[in-house]
Amino acid sequence: MPTTKQWLFNAYPDGLPTFTGPNPTFRQVETTLPELEDGQVLVKNIYLSNDPAQRPWLDRYEDESRLYTTPGHPGELMGTYTIAEVLETKGPSVAVRPGDLVFVRSGWTQYDVCPAAGLRPLAPLPHGLSPSHYVGALGATGLTAWHGLVDVARATADDVVVVSGAAGATGSVAVQIAKRLLGCRRVVGVAGGPAKCAWVVDRLGADACVDYKAPGWRERLAAEGAAAGPAAPAPTVYFDNVGGEILDFMLTKLARHGRVAACGAISGYNAKGGEDEGPGPKRHWFNVITMRLRIEGFIVLDYAEKFPETRETLRRAVEEGKLDISDSEQVVETEFDDIPKTWLKLFEGGNTGKLITKMV
Amino acid sequence: MPTTKQWLFNAYPDGLPTFTGPNPTFRQVETTLPELEDGQVLVKNIYLSNDPAQRPWLDRYEDESRLYTTPGHPGELMGTYTIAEVLETKGPSVAVRPGDLVFVRSGWTQYDVCPAAGLRPLAPLPHGLSPSHYVGALGATGLTAWHGLVDVARATADDVVVVSGAAGATGSVAVQIAKRLLGCRRVVGVAGGPAKCAWVVDRLGADACVDYKAPGWRERLAAEGAAAGPAAPAPTVYFDNVGGEILDFMLTKLARHGRVAACGAISGYNAKGGEDEGPGPKRHWFNVITMRLRIEGFIVLDYAEKFPETRETLRRAVEEGKLDISDSEQVVETEFDDIPKTWLKLFEGGNTGKLITKMV
Repeated sequence: MPTTKQWLFNAYPDGLPTFTGPNPTFRQVETTLPELEDGQVLVKNIYLSNDPAQRPWLDRYEDESRLYTTPGHPGELMGTYTIAEVLETKGPSVAVRPGDLVFVRSGWTQYDVCPAAGLRPLAPLPHGLSPSHYVGALGATGLTAWHGLVDVARATADDVVVVSGAAGATGSVAVQIAKRLLGCRRVVGVAGGPAKCAWVVDRLGADACVDYKAPGWRERLAAEGAAAGPAAPAPTVYFDNVGGEILDFMLTKLARHGRVAACGAISGYNAKGGEDEGPGPKRHWFNVITMRLRIEGFIVLDYAEKFPETRETLRRAVEEGKLDISDSEQVVETEFDDIPKTWLKLFEGGNTGKLITKMV
Repeated sequence: MPTTKQWLFNAYPDGLPTFTGPNPTFRQVETTLPELEDGQVLVKNIYLSNDPAQRPWLDRYEDESRLYTTPGHPGELMGTYTIAEVLETKGPSVAVRPGDLVFVRSGWTQYDVCPAAGLRPLAPLPHGLSPSHYVGALGATGLTAWHGLVDVARATADDVVVVSGAAGATGSVAVQIAKRLLGCRRVVGVAGGPAKCAWVVDRLGADACVDYKAPGWRERLAAEGAAAGPAAPAPTVYFDNVGGEILDFMLTKLARHGRVAACGAISGYNAKGGEDEGPGPKRHWFNVITMRLRIEGFIVLDYAEKFPETRETLRRAVEEGKLDISDSEQVVETEFDDIPKTWLKLFEGGNTGKLITKMV
């Protein structure tokens, strides 16, 4: 069996994770993988998924059942979803073959030994798109955007939809789904910086995108919702990826009976846990009552039964050109030593679309 | 027509309202009422409803449509709901007669002239209960508790329900409805001080009541939810009258797919509007996502179509002794000059049940 380099979760971070300096969040080791047992496969990771949601995996929980997945513990391999190539299999029940590409829960490791159960070879994508999209727009990211809009927010063509993190992995697919698949009457993005905002409008088809880093963003966001005309004077749906100030402000602008699909809260993921820190909407809460808002948190795994159908809906939309995912990912070729550095770009606000590490 | 004393809304308060000192929130005047027009009635107010929700009526709104009712404006009569006696009527279409008791939107005034449309004489209550209950457990307070539990939280016998402000007007009825009418498996109140907590358990039938003013209330509240046994290790419904720290903490304790009926946020009503003030749950927001919580704000007026049926349900429950409202109100006999003083007791945390002013 091969030896492999791995990045381990080393110590709980205090704020932003680190990979150098004293007591780093991540540390590198080299290890030899165990021999395959029956029903296992040896894989070589190619693409690593980078997700803001991995940050809360690194926190300490009094009650771990309150996270939607088992959090990491110091000493363990830093986990992530990957697209990997099957190198070896063992046992007659294993459905995949060496050379197949598979989607697998693995981690920051060159090679890994995984259970074969549930693995299936990934079908080639329309228009020759890279299989990396299986961790992006045609994977959890796209599924999250779809189920958040359709099942949680129950968005329809009548809605004025605001999406925060609109240039991010999930937000960028949510904007396209809302505008191009659901035909929502108006879709407004919120993103950081003029370049991202231009991309959200020009490439993703949003009616407008508000730069929350620019002065006057509140006034601009209020006006953009209203631009749907007097019959929809305010946004009716808010797809929230960020929490914090933008969520708090949106409470003051959502229409009566407006719906919030609470998908993420990146504004608070690196908070240091102080008494008054956190991404919740403190100031304008009373609007939830007076405007009869419905806020619903969700985890895409709860919709797993519908995944085959949703994946097919999205694949067909890509095939027919309704959903343009050609620009939906940013693949960063990364030396093994730099894996944490690429991952940390998630919190620098630099990337558009899904940030994917290609191991070189 | 009689002259009448009135308390006017005088100036926007900065924090807690005042009625003496410089620039008081309320000021007293004496005025002569206009002659009755066709379809109007002259009433003499007897009982005044005191409601925490009247406090946000005194705030300034950029967009007044975001409150659930027209807010007050300086110079206007301070509004409230009252039980009044009809003294005079004008016109053939008026259904009520002098001597009838009616429920009416009036204000802090001895006499008032009101439109007769929609007024109906109040039927005597079972067990000789005072008609003041028409602004309490058999009025908006009881309706709010019922529709918040039944339609918003969708509470059933399977639920473990936590009610904050459990000794307050709405909370105290919510506790009884949850326990005695819906048969929820466990009902836990949260109230301020040992006397209120004892009352919530002994008179209202809660399984437990946690004193949020006592040290260790968080641990106690966590334990009380869990006392329903391993099959319901956490509360599934939170009926929120207060917002703030208790709401924030409840986010960390609600079971997966838990529901919050957001009814009130008294902890923030007298906030001075600072940047980081407000009753929203800032710190533990991420639980909304990981635990897939549904938070829904509501205003009881949205359920007006169901009021006749609900009123009858509550009246019958009182008649049959299932709902004991004999101790559900605190009627304070009040000189006209002291009306604001009695009202301010709402924010002193002193009263149990519905605080009602009886004008003497």
